[in-house]
Amino acid sequence: MSPATYAFLGPEGTFTEAALLQVPGAVEATRIPCTNVNAALDLVRSGQADAAMVPIENSVEGGVTATLDAIATGAELRIIREALVPITFVLVARPGVEVSDVKRISTHGHAWAQCRRWLDAHLPDVDYVPGSSTAAAAMGLLAADAHYDAAICAPLVAAEQPGLTVLAENIGDNFDAVTRFILVGRPGVLPERTGADKTTVVVPLPQDRPGALMDILDQFASRGVNLSRIESRPTGQYLGHYFFSIDADGHAADARVGDALAALHRISPATRFLGSYPRVDKDITEVAPHTSDAAFASAQAWVEAILQGE
Amino acid sequence: MSPATYAFLGPEGTFTEAALLQVPGAVEATRIPCTNVNAALDLVRSGQADAAMVPIENSVEGGVTATLDAIATGAELRIIREALVPITFVLVARPGVEVSDVKRISTHGHAWAQCRRWLDAHLPDVDYVPGSSTAAAAMGLLAADAHYDAAICAPLVAAEQPGLTVLAENIGDNFDAVTRFILVGRPGVLPERTGADKTTVVVPLPQDRPGALMDILDQFASRGVNLSRIESRPTGQYLGHYFFSIDADGHAADARVGDALAALHRISPATRFLGSYPRVDKDITEVAPHTSDAAFASAQAWVEAILQGE
Amino acid sequence: MSPATYAFLGPEGTFTEAALLQVPGAVEATRIPCTNVNAALDLVRSGQADAAMVPIENSVEGGVTATLDAIATGAELRIIREALVPITFVLVARPGVEVSDVKRISTHGHAWAQCRRWLDAHLPDVDYVPGSSTAAAAMGLLAADAHYDAAICAPLVAAEQPGLTVLAENIGDNFDAVTRFILVGRPGVLPERTGADKTTVVVPLPQDRPGALMDILDQFASRGVNLSRIESRPTGQYLGHYFFSIDADGHAADARVGDALAALHRISPATRFLGSYPRVDKDITEVAPHTSDAAFASAQAWVEAILQGE
Amino acid sequence: MSPATYAFLGPEGTFTEAALLQVPGAVEATRIPCTNVNAALDLVRSGQADAAMVPIENSVEGGVTATLDAIATGAELRIIREALVPITFVLVARPGVEVSDVKRISTHGHAWAQCRRWLDAHLPDVDYVPGSSTAAAAMGLLAADAHYDAAICAPLVAAEQPGLTVLAENIGDNFDAVTRFILVGRPGVLPERTGADKTTVVVPLPQDRPGALMDILDQFASRGVNLSRIESRPTGQYLGHYFFSIDADGHAADARVGDALAALHRISPATRFLGSYPRVDKDITEVAPHTSDAAFASAQAWVEAILQGE
Repeated sequence: MSPATYAFLGPEGTFTEAALLQVPGAVEATRIPCTNVNAALDLVRSGQADAAMVPIENSVEGGVTATLDAIATGAELRIIREALVPITFVLVARPGVEVSDVKRISTHGHAWAQCRRWLDAHLPDVDYVPGSSTAAAAMGLLAADAHYDAAICAPLVAAEQPGLTVLAENIGDNFDAVTRFILVGRPGVLPERTGADKTTVVVPLPQDRPGALMDILDQFASRGVNLSRIESRPTGQYLGHYFFSIDADGHAADARVGDALAALHRISPATRFLGSYPRVDKDITEVAPHTSDAAFASAQAWVEAILQGE
Repeated sequence: MSPATYAFLGPEGTFTEAALLQVPGAVEATRIPCTNVNAALDLVRSGQADAAMVPIENSVEGGVTATLDAIATGAELRIIREALVPITFVLVARPGVEVSDVKRISTHGHAWAQCRRWLDAHLPDVDYVPGSSTAAAAMGLLAADAHYDAAICAPLVAAEQPGLTVLAENIGDNFDAVTRFILVGRPGVLPERTGADKTTVVVPLPQDRPGALMDILDQFASRGVNLSRIESRPTGQYLGHYFFSIDADGHAADARVGDALAALHRISPATRFLGSYPRVDKDITEVAPHTSDAAFASAQAWVEAILQGE
Repeated sequence: MSPATYAFLGPEGTFTEAALLQVPGAVEATRIPCTNVNAALDLVRSGQADAAMVPIENSVEGGVTATLDAIATGAELRIIREALVPITFVLVARPGVEVSDVKRISTHGHAWAQCRRWLDAHLPDVDYVPGSSTAAAAMGLLAADAHYDAAICAPLVAAEQPGLTVLAENIGDNFDAVTRFILVGRPGVLPERTGADKTTVVVPLPQDRPGALMDILDQFASRGVNLSRIESRPTGQYLGHYFFSIDADGHAADARVGDALAALHRISPATRFLGSYPRVDKDITEVAPHTSDAAFASAQAWVEAILQGE
Repeated sequence: MSPATYAFLGPEGTFTEAALLQVPGAVEATRIPCTNVNAALDLVRSGQADAAMVPIENSVEGGVTATLDAIATGAELRIIREALVPITFVLVARPGVEVSDVKRISTHGHAWAQCRRWLDAHLPDVDYVPGSSTAAAAMGLLAADAHYDAAICAPLVAAEQPGLTVLAENIGDNFDAVTRFILVGRPGVLPERTGADKTTVVVPLPQDRPGALMDILDQFASRGVNLSRIESRPTGQYLGHYFFSIDADGHAADARVGDALAALHRISPATRFLGSYPRVDKDITEVAPHTSDAAFASAQAWVEAILQGE
């Protein structure tokens, strides 16, 4: 699969574009920045883009919630790849501005939160101006009527924009911060099974069954499928109504994973499959003998023989 | 299926023959009494009998343990029918003997245990002579050298044997006592699904997995399959090594039961299927919507579509 | 408890102040608006305020995540009360502005998201200007250099601010939207048990124990304690490290809840107790006989007697 | 504790007496053989004996079932010690009898079953005469009117009885056969905790709660308590009504075991505690940190502090 057109959560210069550039062929491809996750995914749904790169976990751009919700509803999509990008921040301004001149800083709220310690130490009295993204905040500095002096953004923006000067680097509180991104396409043939795969599902919690969450977790556990991520999200319908977004080790083509998916569908028929794709860390999934494909095949054959009267 | 030859745990006149006579056509069929459960089952295994009637639960003949063990090993067999017989006891002797004359009573140990209260009240000083079955004890009274005066047996024996007089009826401690019997044949086409079925399995407890019993029970519970009987038996190999004999509601042709069987086979590959057959009480099994055949078919189709890239 | 000074997530006129005004005595009390949840909670921690009202669930102010994180770390706090406020939105502008004049709207991002349908229908080409809160966006209209024409905010702001005109009412997509708020104080004597109580805990997921989440849920389920809310939050330490914020039915003084809390502490020693307080809906919790205080007391007495050798 | 009078399942010379002789001081003590398990336990209940030794598991004397049932009902008793005896069988007869002369053999039914292979090989045509115990069968050979030629019994009987000759040794099918015995006293101070202890309970399965067995097992599993034996027994009230006899690792004075006992009492209030006593194999129980006494104490203190408002 080699899509020629990619959407991504823009603007240019965000960590998301950095993630997209990790995809083979993306450098030469058409890359369409979008103002929000929904817009990026809609380009995929409408066929205008082959796939979209969006943040899914621990992002500084606030992408997590938006992405979790956006891929959980609307026309079905498939995650076909994941990418990790280390998150570092720089403080930028127009040439000539010193750190000591800075009175008002704009950036995305999450970036602001992640640089709090540096700011408290170096600019304790600075004011915060909310921005819709780190890159937008940075670009806004170039406008004639900019009502703030500096912005916090990704190093990529600063590197690409000659009109900006870096006042300070690595100002994030957590040097190990990383954001996970996903490349999302339309339903189709799944990426091939590699043995180091991940499967993502969205499972609405049935309301009429107490203990439903334990039942859902048990479908994985009882088949030896480990979970690497589980997040709750309100469905927005009423207080206390949730869906769970889950990453499980393994590929839908693994018998134990396919069997768990079928069980989830029975418990919660609106369960949505979001894809099986290679893990970016390439960690091979360990499989206990009794949950191997061979064990499933043998068990199936045994039951078939019983039903055939053999 | 209309077998012409039945084996049963004898001798004639036991509760087991009463159970066999409930089978349509059994009155006209050849009925072979056997001295023990293994012998009866071996006639089936060798083809000399079409099926064998043996006690499985709460029997006065000690059949439970023997039967559980006998069908759990050796060449595979299938339960094709169950039968219930109320258990009542009579005290019999040769004509002319009065209750007050009785000094020594013979019967099977279980029958002795079940009449303890009556004996304490009416014959507190009587001696006990072990017998291999209630019927054998009764028939032994007719021998010239009988070294006991009376026997405890089933009413059927007394009714069929003119040489015996009933000294007392209904001498069992528990008026509601009942024994469950099973009709056992060779593997073949399963009895048709009626909606009020029972499935019997033998599951050796894997030794290398703590919590294995919970795992086994969970395979039923998580698929909405109720258990009506669960009994542990030592495998005889070493202390603490067990198998479990389990009756579950439903038929192997029910998707939820078939799926649970497959799961058991994965956890404990030596799991043995002992049959799916109509319940004698004809209680229809209630099935929750999410464990119905339709739910299983829908879930299977959903996973197939995912794997096909639809 | 009758605190004289309350902090709340401001500015004045937000839904949070509406929630605070539901507290008996709050109308006469000193009410300190704070710019963010952490600031409000810090006033409580430092003793400058007796309690703080902050949004916890489904808020339009983005309070959920901030609150969940803020009460999960730092000096311990206790939830002592909850409040519900229906969420409705109005579009406001300066006098003389018509809907058709509006080119740029400011509000909090969550409010923007919740009015999307009305905006698409009535102002499809309007631009969005991020605001730090709905009330701040509304008040910003009164500034001389306001770079937007209208704001989306709570009816309370518009009602209290004569310089603003309401252009449209009830513009939220979901007419049943409601936000839950909590009143947070310092640790101390718990609110009395009413039979209709809620207990909130924060449980970090132990990393070294697979199945830990199921274990945690099982501590509630096995003691008959229902959960009304469960939300995952990243701890921020590394990808895949979560804590769970959980609301359970019942009061810590209920034996089953106290016992579940102790069990959570064993599994995850950093578990944080956030309070037991009356449910705002006054729904009495149903308790099965075997999880009643009487059952716990009887079981405890039984074990004590065994250990005493009685 | 040094009881001067012991009851045991007799007659003298059975494996049970061999087990009793392992108890320090038993050689000099008064030892009362009893004809059945109930009789032995009744001597303890009435105070005529200080303790009774009876078989509990895998016995050749049929003691298992009788013991399980006898200690599960009636006045409460306590297991204070366990003992293991290897099971070997000898064929005995009166002097002058050769193996080739033997036509009829008496023994207990279980012993008969365990020597089947040797008998099939050496005496294929021999008849079986049921005996109430292996020792009784052996002693019966000395009676003038013995209607059998040989008996199968324990080596101890043959060794103590000069009137009998051993025709063959080690005739059991399973050379590793072992029986576990228990020494049973009246309720009182529990044997001291050694770190290598076992706790025995009898738990009736509540009928009105589906999944009750899983709940019961979960009370152990969720507190890290391993089970070394679990056996089902019908209560005798009606088909499908069971109790479970369970051996768990640990002592009632271990916090995790005491807590599990309390939980069992809540689920099934008729749960019966049968004792905590040292394991005969002296295997130290491994305890995970989060189920240690320290973890329980810390959790309890934490909850207390919360309830005290600290």
